[in-house]
Amino acid sequence: MIKPRTPPGVMELLPPDQIAFQRMLDVIRRNYERFGFLPVETPVMELSEVLLTKSGGETERQVYFVQSTGALGKAADAGQEGLPELALRFDLTVPLARYVAEHEHELAFPFRRYQMQRVYRGERAQRGRFREFYQCDIDVIGKDSLSVRFDAEIPAVIHAVFSELDIGAFTIQMNNRKLMRGFFEAQGVADGELQALVLREVDKLDKRGEDYVRETLAGEGFGLSAESIDSIMAFVKVRSTSHADALAQLDALGEGNEALREGVAELREVLELVRAIGVPESNYALNFSIARGLDYYTGTVYETTLDDYPQIGSICSGGRYENLASHYTKSKLPGVGISIGLTRLFWQLREAGLLAGASVSTVQALVTQMDAAHLPHCLSVASDLRRAGFNTEVVMEAGKLGRQFKYADRAGIRFVIVLGEDEIANGTVTVKDMRREDQFTINRHELVGALRVELAQAEALQGKHA
Amino acid sequence: MIKPRTPPGVMELLPPDQIAFQRMLDVIRRNYERFGFLPVETPVMELSEVLLTKSGGETERQVYFVQSTGALGKAADAGQEGLPELALRFDLTVPLARYVAEHEHELAFPFRRYQMQRVYRGERAQRGRFREFYQCDIDVIGKDSLSVRFDAEIPAVIHAVFSELDIGAFTIQMNNRKLMRGFFEAQGVADGELQALVLREVDKLDKRGEDYVRETLAGEGFGLSAESIDSIMAFVKVRSTSHADALAQLDALGEGNEALREGVAELREVLELVRAIGVPESNYALNFSIARGLDYYTGTVYETTLDDYPQIGSICSGGRYENLASHYTKSKLPGVGISIGLTRLFWQLREAGLLAGASVSTVQALVTQMDAAHLPHCLSVASDLRRAGFNTEVVMEAGKLGRQFKYADRAGIRFVIVLGEDEIANGTVTVKDMRREDQFTINRHELVGALRVELAQAEALQGKHA
Repeated sequence: MIKPRTPPGVMELLPPDQIAFQRMLDVIRRNYERFGFLPVETPVMELSEVLLTKSGGETERQVYFVQSTGALGKAADAGQEGLPELALRFDLTVPLARYVAEHEHELAFPFRRYQMQRVYRGERAQRGRFREFYQCDIDVIGKDSLSVRFDAEIPAVIHAVFSELDIGAFTIQMNNRKLMRGFFEAQGVADGELQALVLREVDKLDKRGEDYVRETLAGEGFGLSAESIDSIMAFVKVRSTSHADALAQLDALGEGNEALREGVAELREVLELVRAIGVPESNYALNFSIARGLDYYTGTVYETTLDDYPQIGSICSGGRYENLASHYTKSKLPGVGISIGLTRLFWQLREAGLLAGASVSTVQALVTQMDAAHLPHCLSVASDLRRAGFNTEVVMEAGKLGRQFKYADRAGIRFVIVLGEDEIANGTVTVKDMRREDQFTINRHELVGALRVELAQAEALQGKHA
Repeated sequence: MIKPRTPPGVMELLPPDQIAFQRMLDVIRRNYERFGFLPVETPVMELSEVLLTKSGGETERQVYFVQSTGALGKAADAGQEGLPELALRFDLTVPLARYVAEHEHELAFPFRRYQMQRVYRGERAQRGRFREFYQCDIDVIGKDSLSVRFDAEIPAVIHAVFSELDIGAFTIQMNNRKLMRGFFEAQGVADGELQALVLREVDKLDKRGEDYVRETLAGEGFGLSAESIDSIMAFVKVRSTSHADALAQLDALGEGNEALREGVAELREVLELVRAIGVPESNYALNFSIARGLDYYTGTVYETTLDDYPQIGSICSGGRYENLASHYTKSKLPGVGISIGLTRLFWQLREAGLLAGASVSTVQALVTQMDAAHLPHCLSVASDLRRAGFNTEVVMEAGKLGRQFKYADRAGIRFVIVLGEDEIANGTVTVKDMRREDQFTINRHELVGALRVELAQAEALQGKHA
């Protein structure tokens, strides 16, 4: 006998949680499609040579390699540097780059794609860290160029997704890498790598406190003046409180150098269009401390946080990059995109008790069975319900009605259809609404209409998120 | 520069095909849920020790093993028999067995689950063979016992799925392993393994012809009498032509031995309930040649074929088994289930030119842009459409209107919304319906209603498959 268990670092769910997870995936997909993004799926295995274009780096050390039974032990048979030929994707960005470069002449640019698949990282085993997790990405890829206007659609998508996910108030925080670069250059931090190091120190503000960060920036390797440090500290604390305030914060930066002016102009255009699309100003803000991956993003950058749960960190991040696929094609492919790490988000929401509605089944109706002789009748009623679009389960083995009700209750099935002797004789059905704790008997041919009315009322009560 | 390419044996699709594929996944999932099956997803990686419970076998030789960078080269560090600790699932049945055994006390039985994920097999590279492919499975698992009545729901699910997939006439072919066993025992083929070998030979009827098969069954290792061979040949040719004929074919088998009687009684009950659920009799038939995996299935077995494309083979197969998870638990867990190998089916349908509607985008409306100054107006109109539930793309960089129309046409986007100087001045929009080659100008606030009417008309024309 082998002990049934999953490997460490994966999230496997029981059906009620899986239903909740699937609903989140559906909401994300529906909203990605709403904004005109097209579906793409790529194989989980990529050629190692194609996947591992960058040398070194944290990610590369966490790659999972794949070998078929036949290839095992034949290390000499492996690809470059003795690595196995195949590896599991560790994100959806490298596969996107490969996909766009490979199919460049078959795609229409700007190319908008969404991709929602699992990725793999050999992370250190740790609570809340996953070795297999869903990423839900959108990107718009231009050929040669891509207007900054596309950067304005991204917050609109984020807003649509998280409004419908209904997990509480959220703020889409925006910044611009050019603006940052311009600002830091003006403070005498001209070197890109040094900027990165300064930002990394500044990022420790919350954890280590202001004194620690000031000391570090004044010390060896940085040697910044007190004045510069003051400026930097003031800069990274900027958060806008409204649309008008965001514009005012940009104005307050003054003329500055070229990079700063470019960044300000870009953010200004993005902000105006975000408003034109209809994103409420309470849902977006400037935040000059946001940098994201410094070697990758070049313009607008986004992070999204839950207002009441800042400790969860960013639940949706991304930005603008210069060139997606320089390892695979000479074409210049700038893009802008975001990613939602759904496995981690789901885990965090569950930990925080924020997963409402997880107890509602995908099954909407349970047709009970009181006598084996009634089964054909039960099946026929269930077929009516299914044809009308209701997800319906039939109790296939007759048993005590009480047990059948208990099952429906535990499973989160809303409508229980009772077909007893009387009902069958009279051509009626008895419906018990488990949620409203209501019960009524109607003609069989009225059943579908009655359940539709009940559901419509429930949806009306719930508001638009039906 | 690295050549961007996928590994051999995977199917990667361009967006129009991916949309068609996704629609098939959606149809399958919707119908699985319609019958009360609950979603389950399992990790792609399982512990090798858990996954590879059977020794030897074709499948085991095709397993992909997984190792993180750190584990590479540390063969001594590996699991039992020197194999790496992790492996990719090669089907959804073993993970189901592990899942049910692991979560036995948290699940309600009979447990109905559906699972639609990719599986991995190190197949020989060959056209139409995939190393990564989707399986879409349903199973009902009982604890200790599971009534044969559940076997009757399976054809109803198959019928619902393939009716909505709308890929042509199909027949669900049914048989019963007990009936087969009883029949073969009566022919003097009492040994289970020998039955399997006879069936394997009979399975070559189409490919090698009757003479070849007769000769083999009379020859060494089988030594069957001419009479027995006649009986077997007649038996495996049985196909029913209607519900009544199916029952008559069962009657025609006579009293027989106990196994035969049991098999006949089960099939009879299944047939009656399949009819009660409302599956049209043209969609199911008896086929006594169908055996499926002989060491696994013990009762009802199913195969589904496209009437006009028999060469595609079975597009949905499965059956009843005695015990799902004997490697992981002492509990007896009988079940019944089916699997659709969607990647292969999609590939075959595409090869046969049967993928209708693949040119219809997920994007329903394209809002064009004639002048950069109009963009905020365009975005606002698009937001109206999205709020009303239309998947809408906005042309973000103004260009020639002709090019924008051409893009919509190629992309399969049905409605093109034109917002020119006149429209903006008059508060109107011009809608071009690319499918009906129709064009009309209406007030902006009438836009959502007008598109709804157009879509409703299209759906009414298409029938229920909207």
